[in-house]
Amino acid sequence: MPELRKDPVINRWVIISTERAKRPHDFMLPKEEKKGGFCPFDYGNEHTTPPEIMAFRPADTEPNTPGWWIRVVPNKFPALDPSLEPERYGHGMYDAMKGFGAHEVVIETADHNTNMALMNLKQVEEIIWAYKHRYEALIKREGIKYVLIFKNHGSLAGASLEHPHSQIIATPIVPKRVHEELVGSREYYSFKERCVFCDMINQERLENARVVEINDDFISFEPFASRFPFETWIMPRRHVHSFKDITDSEIKGFAQILRNTLYKIYVGLDNPPYNFMLHTAPETGEGSEYYHWHLEIVPRLTKVAGFEWGSGFYINPTPPEEAAKFLREIKPGEQKLNKLKE
Amino acid sequence: MPELRKDPVINRWVIISTERAKRPHDFMLPKEEKKGGFCPFDYGNEHTTPPEIMAFRPADTEPNTPGWWIRVVPNKFPALDPSLEPERYGHGMYDAMKGFGAHEVVIETADHNTNMALMNLKQVEEIIWAYKHRYEALIKREGIKYVLIFKNHGSLAGASLEHPHSQIIATPIVPKRVHEELVGSREYYSFKERCVFCDMINQERLENARVVEINDDFISFEPFASRFPFETWIMPRRHVHSFKDITDSEIKGFAQILRNTLYKIYVGLDNPPYNFMLHTAPETGEGSEYYHWHLEIVPRLTKVAGFEWGSGFYINPTPPEEAAKFLREIKPGEQKLNKLKE
Repeated sequence: MPELRKDPVINRWVIISTERAKRPHDFMLPKEEKKGGFCPFDYGNEHTTPPEIMAFRPADTEPNTPGWWIRVVPNKFPALDPSLEPERYGHGMYDAMKGFGAHEVVIETADHNTNMALMNLKQVEEIIWAYKHRYEALIKREGIKYVLIFKNHGSLAGASLEHPHSQIIATPIVPKRVHEELVGSREYYSFKERCVFCDMINQERLENARVVEINDDFISFEPFASRFPFETWIMPRRHVHSFKDITDSEIKGFAQILRNTLYKIYVGLDNPPYNFMLHTAPETGEGSEYYHWHLEIVPRLTKVAGFEWGSGFYINPTPPEEAAKFLREIKPGEQKLNKLKE
Repeated sequence: MPELRKDPVINRWVIISTERAKRPHDFMLPKEEKKGGFCPFDYGNEHTTPPEIMAFRPADTEPNTPGWWIRVVPNKFPALDPSLEPERYGHGMYDAMKGFGAHEVVIETADHNTNMALMNLKQVEEIIWAYKHRYEALIKREGIKYVLIFKNHGSLAGASLEHPHSQIIATPIVPKRVHEELVGSREYYSFKERCVFCDMINQERLENARVVEINDDFISFEPFASRFPFETWIMPRRHVHSFKDITDSEIKGFAQILRNTLYKIYVGLDNPPYNFMLHTAPETGEGSEYYHWHLEIVPRLTKVAGFEWGSGFYINPTPPEEAAKFLREIKPGEQKLNKLKE
């Protein structure tokens, strides 16, 4: 049974996973990447994943058979388990709870060899539709407090399969980082009576030095205090605290800016590993005035060292102004695409 | 000029480093490790580092010549610069300050091919003496608020040179993680009127399930809410908030438990990359009742993925009880040493 445990000093929750359990000797095996072998996300292998939760597929096809273009399935090795009760208990001075939650995989395409940077916009839009559907379904569940949508691209960013996919984890707690953003943006609001994220958008537009791309509804930019080279945030330009309030037309704009930003990173930095993660307010109403949903993209170009782990502050060797200038100058079609790395 | 920049939402400071600046194309070069080449930390190459700040060396040798057994030098590519003023300024809505601080390297031995896990205790004791000397000197400087002592071992943990060394960074701010620990331990103290770290030591001794090693003055254990497989903390058993208050006899006990714990990790996990970092209270008197200095060791066995970055909470596939049992059973001399990895 997976267990959630809380650090007694800084109140950080950790999932002690048993489904994904690793014994000490597992860490000593040579870490080889499997390439070109069996892929459970390819057409014809649908029976090797848990049964699909939803899929975009022609009306005349059966669930768990080929023909789909997006497919959502439970993670075969889930970090959290929907069948548990969200029960809390003490362990001496420590706090823990059963590892209740959900863990799903969004298989973004049937094409094993592409990635989101190279997809057509329609496909990216539908991936966002899938995110929204699953977000809405999971956040309604009794005991679920937060739904995290994220993507690991490339094995150095933690992806264990190369077939394009994202993940969704529903948790019985609000994650620490989101809690910190809520507290910080509330403090700013109580001082300024304005949303700190809206203020950032205004300043970024005014200066333009860190902007990567902008369209009618979204802006993508390198944050002023970027932790990592080419860290890029995408924000809706109107004030809106929850991702679930994205409109149909905003989904088009979001797909466009997300695909274009990933394309610039893909071409400019030669298909680096990256993570992205969607930050939204919890569905308690909290944050409606002062929180602002956004997506954070972190290319994995540098190694995070002891200083960063230990201190929670970061050394970034690339000024965000320089990173933004570099990415801005990459225009779709103007640069030759590198072949996907084998 | 390096610059410190503050995230306007969660108040996290980031060093935008110019000395270590990387241009976009730098990230696309093949990342090869240099092995067997020139090492600036070897005997005879003392002139290739900035002049030494202190060294343990025979009285009849000159500074910056061979003969030393521990040497402390300024980092050739410092993240922070002692010659700047710690001036703060605004940049529109954002907060920044000049990259004032210090960045030093402790060359732990003249022997290029060893590591701390394999050193004799006397050598480790003297490394700790060097840490203490530099801590005391740096924390006294005008404008310095915190001194971070840490080590990156192995290139996957961020070490750019394989010669055994640690680093010291003195900063004009208290790092976010330490601030969080101060706030959390103060809250616990106001509720319980006890130090949360002392309570952890008591519970760990009572249960014994997560203890790795114990001696008269120190305990080493896997924390209940370990973020990473084989994350190991070392704590003084008496309540003491600041590392600088370590006594001469405690230095012996600290050297012993640190060397033995690193040895167990080295043998048991086949010389994995790791980071360690010393957490101590700032020298403001703050925390004297409720903070407790300690060292956190994090072997780098798993890849930190998008979920962790984005959420601030972690999935750990190895229960700490299992990790502790595995490490406890490794006794110095009982297991054959693996050859140092080439």
